[in-house]
Amino acid sequence: MKIENIYVKKLVSQYREISLLNNVSALLSWDLEVNLPSRAMEARSAQSAYLTKLTSDKWLDTDFKKTLEKAQEARNLNAHEKAIVRNLVQGAKFYHRVPQETIVNLSETTSKAFFAWREAREKNKYKLFEPHLKKVIALSKIIAEHIGYSDKPYDALLDMYEPGFTTKEGKVIFGSLVKELGALLTKIKKSQAYLIDENKLLTTEYSPTYQKQIADFVLNKIGYDFSAGRMDVAAHPFTIELGAGDVRITNRYSPHNFIESVMVAMHEGGHALYEQGIVREFDGTPLAGGVSLGIHESQSRFWENQVGRSREFVEFLEPVLKAFYQKELNAETAESLSKAFNMVRPSLIRVEADEVTYNLHIALRFELEEAIINGKIKVEDLPEVWRTKMKKYLGVEPKSDSEGVLQDVHWSHGSFGYFPTYTLGNLYAAQFTFFMKRELALAKLIREGDFGTILSWQRKNIHQYGSLYWPKELVKRVTGKPLSPDYFLDYLKKKYSEMYSL
Amino acid sequence: MKIENIYVKKLVSQYREISLLNNVSALLSWDLEVNLPSRAMEARSAQSAYLTKLTSDKWLDTDFKKTLEKAQEARNLNAHEKAIVRNLVQGAKFYHRVPQETIVNLSETTSKAFFAWREAREKNKYKLFEPHLKKVIALSKIIAEHIGYSDKPYDALLDMYEPGFTTKEGKVIFGSLVKELGALLTKIKKSQAYLIDENKLLTTEYSPTYQKQIADFVLNKIGYDFSAGRMDVAAHPFTIELGAGDVRITNRYSPHNFIESVMVAMHEGGHALYEQGIVREFDGTPLAGGVSLGIHESQSRFWENQVGRSREFVEFLEPVLKAFYQKELNAETAESLSKAFNMVRPSLIRVEADEVTYNLHIALRFELEEAIINGKIKVEDLPEVWRTKMKKYLGVEPKSDSEGVLQDVHWSHGSFGYFPTYTLGNLYAAQFTFFMKRELALAKLIREGDFGTILSWQRKNIHQYGSLYWPKELVKRVTGKPLSPDYFLDYLKKKYSEMYSL
Repeated sequence: MKIENIYVKKLVSQYREISLLNNVSALLSWDLEVNLPSRAMEARSAQSAYLTKLTSDKWLDTDFKKTLEKAQEARNLNAHEKAIVRNLVQGAKFYHRVPQETIVNLSETTSKAFFAWREAREKNKYKLFEPHLKKVIALSKIIAEHIGYSDKPYDALLDMYEPGFTTKEGKVIFGSLVKELGALLTKIKKSQAYLIDENKLLTTEYSPTYQKQIADFVLNKIGYDFSAGRMDVAAHPFTIELGAGDVRITNRYSPHNFIESVMVAMHEGGHALYEQGIVREFDGTPLAGGVSLGIHESQSRFWENQVGRSREFVEFLEPVLKAFYQKELNAETAESLSKAFNMVRPSLIRVEADEVTYNLHIALRFELEEAIINGKIKVEDLPEVWRTKMKKYLGVEPKSDSEGVLQDVHWSHGSFGYFPTYTLGNLYAAQFTFFMKRELALAKLIREGDFGTILSWQRKNIHQYGSLYWPKELVKRVTGKPLSPDYFLDYLKKKYSEMYSL
Repeated sequence: MKIENIYVKKLVSQYREISLLNNVSALLSWDLEVNLPSRAMEARSAQSAYLTKLTSDKWLDTDFKKTLEKAQEARNLNAHEKAIVRNLVQGAKFYHRVPQETIVNLSETTSKAFFAWREAREKNKYKLFEPHLKKVIALSKIIAEHIGYSDKPYDALLDMYEPGFTTKEGKVIFGSLVKELGALLTKIKKSQAYLIDENKLLTTEYSPTYQKQIADFVLNKIGYDFSAGRMDVAAHPFTIELGAGDVRITNRYSPHNFIESVMVAMHEGGHALYEQGIVREFDGTPLAGGVSLGIHESQSRFWENQVGRSREFVEFLEPVLKAFYQKELNAETAESLSKAFNMVRPSLIRVEADEVTYNLHIALRFELEEAIINGKIKVEDLPEVWRTKMKKYLGVEPKSDSEGVLQDVHWSHGSFGYFPTYTLGNLYAAQFTFFMKRELALAKLIREGDFGTILSWQRKNIHQYGSLYWPKELVKRVTGKPLSPDYFLDYLKKKYSEMYSL
């Protein structure tokens, strides 16, 4: 990486402070989830808010703004320099276009909305959350106007999480998914295998100590570098980057479900491998970090689903699982374990969904967000629309709003536009895998536990570049094609047709 | 607390940012000692250095300096306002009097000195450390001149750790301790009990899991609030305050020494109880936190030695220890356990020293620091002077510099003036205990495990005040007398005369 333009040089140096503040904020968040004593919540909130203020001050610094303007006017920038300026312009959109009063207002509103959401979910009373959600949505619309868009207001929000992704593209993608996944699900539900599907595996107890050792084993195997990270316990699994050489993940161990912690290790491990694989010269610059939430999610979904839920991975893992749970898994075969790893069951809760139904949960959220931000439905109507769509897409209907519209925390945070990146991750992952298979004998490598070869492919094609190429450019570079849901749909149809003998 | 003066009000508000930065820096340090992956060292150093810079900027802020000057000129301040101004003037000394180039120079010099010290100690080569130590000492002398003093340069350094403590006072105290402790040690060494003293207890293995459970038990018993803190594992035990409701401690579990982790829990627990007992309205203000290192150490030494090594505490703990280590401690009695908790043995290493010899290690350091800062001896001569004094005070002679002048990290950090606060802690603790016993039946309370009554006395007399009263004022308020080594010497003579039948 050669940075020669004086403005870009200056930007990189100024950005270094933002990067350090981001690292420190990340540590505060990690510690909050993993360690924080209950009585320290208030102090920690104040510390985080102060760092957020310091970070925002850096983005708003007059000299930084001027340098960024100068850099945008510069000619003859090289690829790295261009990407740096592009990423900073993207990152600055929120700070430079949205008035500070609105940012403060959003922060205060979402703070209160979060507590209202928690209470509403506990008490199963949507009405407690509704007025807060109204405010959050009103502010999100105002923010969308400040940020700007060429077609729909929702585009401005989508773009913050996945640069360049639009409502129009989303409608095409989710339209296709709803249709095809609905058809696949209908077939599965009619199959003989679906009727007798019953997960006996998850009724006995699996020692959490062993679960952790299996997760450690899996992470070591796929190439997660424990000398540049660690795995701790948290209520909600996540991956977080705290600076160069420090990418941490968390896991959780449900006594009755040994599969979940393996899948969490693969999923969060996938995120972490991406961060650990970025060239070190990007550290602390605007090119550091995975390029978007969608691409990041493609790396986690690849390891979780494309690898972790494959028949070959189950075959690879079977002896390990049986070494730890000799008695419990004595009667199981690779066949029966593979079914347990892949059981399809339409359910009310997104985070418990299988590969076939997962994206229907996201489609529902995308459609609701689009309708609410683009002004087609009212906040009061959300619970009812939610129920209707659940019934239509998944054939199940929430008995309470806690299992329905109140199940996710995201809207209370004001994260409209975030959900679609989960599906984008699944689609990117399938498309990457399709092309990876042209070069690698993936099934054989997985069965033999040769994950190093797979990781090398990812590092060479995706990881090393960090935030150098934006999602659309990256997908084009790696696969030669623009993003299409077909790779994912073909993968699912093939896998589940075999599994359910359709 | 009523803050009415407009300048003091403004200072408190400005200091809030320094306090938040201190909290965040503390989290970075805690995480470094407890969690940090090995490859993240460099990134963490950069993060910490950046926060140090932000903090220093706040102290040096022109508006803050002006407000502090105005506040110093203010008349009719109340006690809280006066203490706030006094503490800020004290805290600002370093930043306002020492030129920034010197501070940067010190930071770079001590960084390098630390690594040189580590290598020198590993290789047992003082010469590797010597040139770095020379620079650190030269800078410490320059800093002393900038800070200012009325008698000796060393006073300026002592005052940074224990406000108001001087070379002159130190000479009186350590002179008395060297003489009296030397005499006591001579008697002990000639006693029959000393000759047959042999710690068989520490030859078998004690499960670390149980050690942790015993430490948890002890901490809960003495009143440490786990909902406002936590205990983790670290190589060197410490206590750290990360903000309101978050005072964490660390411990370590040596397989052969179950006594150490109990004593660490009592010691660090003592520090933590102090922080947890400060009135909450001081949070985030210049009155928050323990008032000085010496007073802080008095609270840890009180729980470790005055309580933890008392015969009554051993009697209280005996059934608990035996419940965990039934087989290992089967043959022991309160008498034999108490001996194991209190065995006197002159040794080369300060951190392993018993109550009788500990302060002789500090006396040696105080005398060396005084001589080197006040220009009486040369850096080249330190190893030899160390050996001579060890021989003279403790009757043992280090075979290598690693066991001698290189054993402590402190000088590589530039912390000249720090060591004496360990002894001050022992003296304050004994003096406080003497007066506490006038109001409380201490022995009985300990034997019955009624630590709440003891803690209440500490909260009422010491803890609640945080940094409101400076050490000398506090000691006078609590005991009616100025600090004197006599209370400590009387306590030791009585305790060890009985134990060794002198």
